[in-house]
Amino acid sequence: MSPLARFSVNQMTVRQLPLPDLTEACARLGVPGIGLWREPVAAYGLEATAKLVRDAGLTVTTLCRGGFFTTAADLDDNRAAVDEAATLGTDTLVLVSGGLPPAGKDLAAARALIADALSELAPYAAERGIRLAIEPLHPMYAADRCAISTLDQALTLAAPFPASQVGVVVDTYHVWWDDRAPTAVARAGAQGRIHSFQLADWTTPLPAGVLNGRGQLGDGCIDLRAWRELVDTSGYTGPIEVELFNDDLWARDGVEVLEETVRRYVRHVL
Amino acid sequence: MSPLARFSVNQMTVRQLPLPDLTEACARLGVPGIGLWREPVAAYGLEATAKLVRDAGLTVTTLCRGGFFTTAADLDDNRAAVDEAATLGTDTLVLVSGGLPPAGKDLAAARALIADALSELAPYAAERGIRLAIEPLHPMYAADRCAISTLDQALTLAAPFPASQVGVVVDTYHVWWDDRAPTAVARAGAQGRIHSFQLADWTTPLPAGVLNGRGQLGDGCIDLRAWRELVDTSGYTGPIEVELFNDDLWARDGVEVLEETVRRYVRHVL
Repeated sequence: MSPLARFSVNQMTVRQLPLPDLTEACARLGVPGIGLWREPVAAYGLEATAKLVRDAGLTVTTLCRGGFFTTAADLDDNRAAVDEAATLGTDTLVLVSGGLPPAGKDLAAARALIADALSELAPYAAERGIRLAIEPLHPMYAADRCAISTLDQALTLAAPFPASQVGVVVDTYHVWWDDRAPTAVARAGAQGRIHSFQLADWTTPLPAGVLNGRGQLGDGCIDLRAWRELVDTSGYTGPIEVELFNDDLWARDGVEVLEETVRRYVRHVL
Repeated sequence: MSPLARFSVNQMTVRQLPLPDLTEACARLGVPGIGLWREPVAAYGLEATAKLVRDAGLTVTTLCRGGFFTTAADLDDNRAAVDEAATLGTDTLVLVSGGLPPAGKDLAAARALIADALSELAPYAAERGIRLAIEPLHPMYAADRCAISTLDQALTLAAPFPASQVGVVVDTYHVWWDDRAPTAVARAGAQGRIHSFQLADWTTPLPAGVLNGRGQLGDGCIDLRAWRELVDTSGYTGPIEVELFNDDLWARDGVEVLEETVRRYVRHVL
């Protein structure tokens, strides 16, 4: 089996690369998987993207993202995200659930809104063969992006639904600090609820806004191999997607960054 | 009882104020408590600071800080911090435990180092009438400042010791996002382990380095009154200390900031 058999590159990692350049580089480097984002997909064209990745023989491991249930609560847009996922041929829509409503201060209420929205969206997604993957985001995003901060919370939200409908994203950047995450990973794996496994390293100091500081594999302090082994041990055998938002990486040549990411994956994750 | 009876200002909130100006402003405004930091105390002189606050009739609610057990592991310096706390007349030394050792990736190992150091320091502190207060810091500081990210973890660390020796700091900025924090607060209060209650608000976007973005009371999204009520309900009756690190506040007139902080406390906390 190729060492890259489970590797997937999220397109945000090399967002400077136009989609045709990215798919061509993936084919050349033996990268079998790609994670997509709605905005660049829309810019290139939904059908055109679907054809491009299909012709390149790539597996679309995830589509990012639905969610933001606490602010706009725009279920129509989330249904559209489900439809786009189906068109792109992926089985997994990543959900970033949303933070506090404007001027809101009640995280518990925000979490209740998220649960309500899930109960509407999950059946719609299931009919189209799309699994919803709740992504707990690091607690530093609790106010403005995602009131779901831990795998435990995400699993509690997912529990009312069949595992084939609603699961979680395990992203090392978001959960590495959490002493309860290892047992949550084991539980999620046993339930078949790990719908995506994403990697980024933790580097400091964090940049202003704390959005674009997801570190290249090996540049930070997360024991990525230990996390990969932990997730494997839970029973997960799916793709391992590298998703970096990083101004420094975006300023470089995209193909060079992808090549580096592949090397880092082999060195620090396998 | 004065509405400010439990109010304490941490000197970092108005670090632009020289100590004599701060103590004079406290006396004028009816602020009864002050939290001190070792570095500015040393700069003014330990004995001189002790005399200054004593003459002003101020209660020193905390001294910040000991800790950083995972890097330098400098117990001599921590013993010195205990001695300074005793000289200043406070009963509480705040501990920021330290993050990962240099090039380290093992948070569990870092936490074990912290537990080891505590077992050496706690008896020394107890002999001098000083309580150690373990402060869980927000998970965004787990790598470089504090591997203890939740009240649950801090209480687990404190558990082997009498409550009179080792307790915790409840700081709204660090724990507001945590759905398990309310039950941890109740447990900590029931055990008599809340040794300090600190306030700051959560504002976004976070500044680069994420150190100096602790928001003025009422400027952010934390329901400060609800947290105060929660802590009160747990049985805590001690000081309520406002500790803000904030470049914008530091750029303003210090007395004006202190006056504003008092007004905000009355409006958003009481």
